[in-house]
Amino acid sequence: MKKLINQPENSLNEMLIGMAKAYPDYLTRLDNTNVLVRKNLTEQKVAVVSGGGSGHEPTHAGYIGQGMLDAAVAGDIFTSPTPDQIYEAIKAVDRGKGVLLVVKNYSGDVMNFDMAKEMAEMEGIAVEQVIVNDDVAVEDSTFTTGRRGIAGTVLIHKIAGAAAERGWDLQKVKETAEKAIKSIHSMGMALSPCIVPSAGKPNFTLAEDEVEIGTGIHGEPGTHREKIKSADEITQELFDKIQADAPIQSGDDVALMVNGMGATPLMELYIVNNKAHDLLVSLGAHIHRTFVGEFMTSIEMAGMSLTVLKLDDQLKSLLDDAADTPALKVIKK
Amino acid sequence: MKKLINQPENSLNEMLIGMAKAYPDYLTRLDNTNVLVRKNLTEQKVAVVSGGGSGHEPTHAGYIGQGMLDAAVAGDIFTSPTPDQIYEAIKAVDRGKGVLLVVKNYSGDVMNFDMAKEMAEMEGIAVEQVIVNDDVAVEDSTFTTGRRGIAGTVLIHKIAGAAAERGWDLQKVKETAEKAIKSIHSMGMALSPCIVPSAGKPNFTLAEDEVEIGTGIHGEPGTHREKIKSADEITQELFDKIQADAPIQSGDDVALMVNGMGATPLMELYIVNNKAHDLLVSLGAHIHRTFVGEFMTSIEMAGMSLTVLKLDDQLKSLLDDAADTPALKVIKK
Repeated sequence: MKKLINQPENSLNEMLIGMAKAYPDYLTRLDNTNVLVRKNLTEQKVAVVSGGGSGHEPTHAGYIGQGMLDAAVAGDIFTSPTPDQIYEAIKAVDRGKGVLLVVKNYSGDVMNFDMAKEMAEMEGIAVEQVIVNDDVAVEDSTFTTGRRGIAGTVLIHKIAGAAAERGWDLQKVKETAEKAIKSIHSMGMALSPCIVPSAGKPNFTLAEDEVEIGTGIHGEPGTHREKIKSADEITQELFDKIQADAPIQSGDDVALMVNGMGATPLMELYIVNNKAHDLLVSLGAHIHRTFVGEFMTSIEMAGMSLTVLKLDDQLKSLLDDAADTPALKVIKK
Repeated sequence: MKKLINQPENSLNEMLIGMAKAYPDYLTRLDNTNVLVRKNLTEQKVAVVSGGGSGHEPTHAGYIGQGMLDAAVAGDIFTSPTPDQIYEAIKAVDRGKGVLLVVKNYSGDVMNFDMAKEMAEMEGIAVEQVIVNDDVAVEDSTFTTGRRGIAGTVLIHKIAGAAAERGWDLQKVKETAEKAIKSIHSMGMALSPCIVPSAGKPNFTLAEDEVEIGTGIHGEPGTHREKIKSADEITQELFDKIQADAPIQSGDDVALMVNGMGATPLMELYIVNNKAHDLLVSLGAHIHRTFVGEFMTSIEMAGMSLTVLKLDDQLKSLLDDAADTPALKVIKK
């Protein structure tokens, strides 16, 4: 294991301290927790909280700031955060207008966020929860019943965050996030595994000429393995599966995300975007906004995922609202 | 070689098309060239042009936009762009106030940018050039006489771009960039090599427990190889070399950049930032702004570099000016 770390068991803590030191204007760490909280909490708006296992940076805390998240709860690497930590996050950011939890669909996350929601409700805090399950690759998986939540979650943070920032009430923010979740579909693939520091060895193995299609963000199995093909062919394969699930019609407005899993160079992501863009355009879609980069990673896994989000006028407008976070900034034109 | 590419020889072209498709509001490709140009060129300001070999994404074209670059010239992977392409970039962006070229100190880049400068001057365009040589690791290297230009160059783009955006004249923009270049110092290290697609094999080899200190952004040799140590010890080692070269004094204002080389997870960069931050603070420095992420990569090399830029009031203010580019956005407070 060749990593820039100190003691493996200190990696999460040192990462959180390192983040707080990097972005003092954006976020601060809640004492005695693995919760990072937005620095200048806006009064009189719904708070948006997300979180989950670590190892997916910049997800989740990288999206704390204006127009996105108010707090992020960091579990251990590839491990759900505990209910008490989620509860602390909810308490820290509630300003009386309630809290929306954005949860990726993993059994541990769903259970723990749900318990924290109940704890907060007993304290009189209004809490709602949305579950993101954008991954079309497989139904039920190593850590999931139903479909997994992957990189599309970042666009749900953007939309829910923008809705909250506009001052909408908890019910409307939740309904808007749920509408976006119904319209978002993703699928990923891997060229190489990654190593969880405390495990010290790769989480799966692939032959030198092999890729896995449909891999999850913790290395969970996908649909199948195959000999590596060209970037265009792999992009087409992921796209076809998304298209089979949620067909794009001519005239649709969409957002497109090409997400790098950690070790894949930006050069390759742009090559994938070249093809993904053409596939959407060939169906008559209009690409309203494109995101290319590392938005939700799997430590140093090589690979990528595609996300297509169908947009109505409301979602377009929310996506275009200003956002100012360490990992994603949108400057409103 | 396991990469998301099509034909290796088409990678550069497909990457440039993929970038142009991702950011239609920011940049456009100049016909029949590997030059990307800012979409809405501002009249009546000095233009700032950079470029160099590809494989360092988001450098260079990722920094095209308000407050940074007006054009970026892409050479083949790890290869200097040709003078005629640089000349086309200069002609495309000059608005009568002249053009500043920001060049990293590699012999091929310096020679070709110089030839393009002469070609443009013969056409009556005022052109000035600054050479970035922030890498304190070695004097003279595989492709360099003197010191190499590495990730600190991105902050020179920021400062020169902000100066130009303020409407300053060519001489003042150049002098400001040169002042910043004198104040910026970087050093990198590698945990693994990378593969240039057309070569198909790693550009160097390292043992399983070995790292190289002082490696350049094309895998050029550094100062030495050693057994891997902790992140804190490696950070200290790079920092000590920078500090020996350009001592930080108590009370200094600085910008700090922790740059990932391609395959190093953000988690590890934050762990490095935790230590680098403490080292600066222990010397009495004030960290005005921190940049953690992949700013100048070496395809999929694992490793990182540290950059320390000493700031006077003018440089602080230029760094804080608004920037709106695909890869770096600064929202002015």
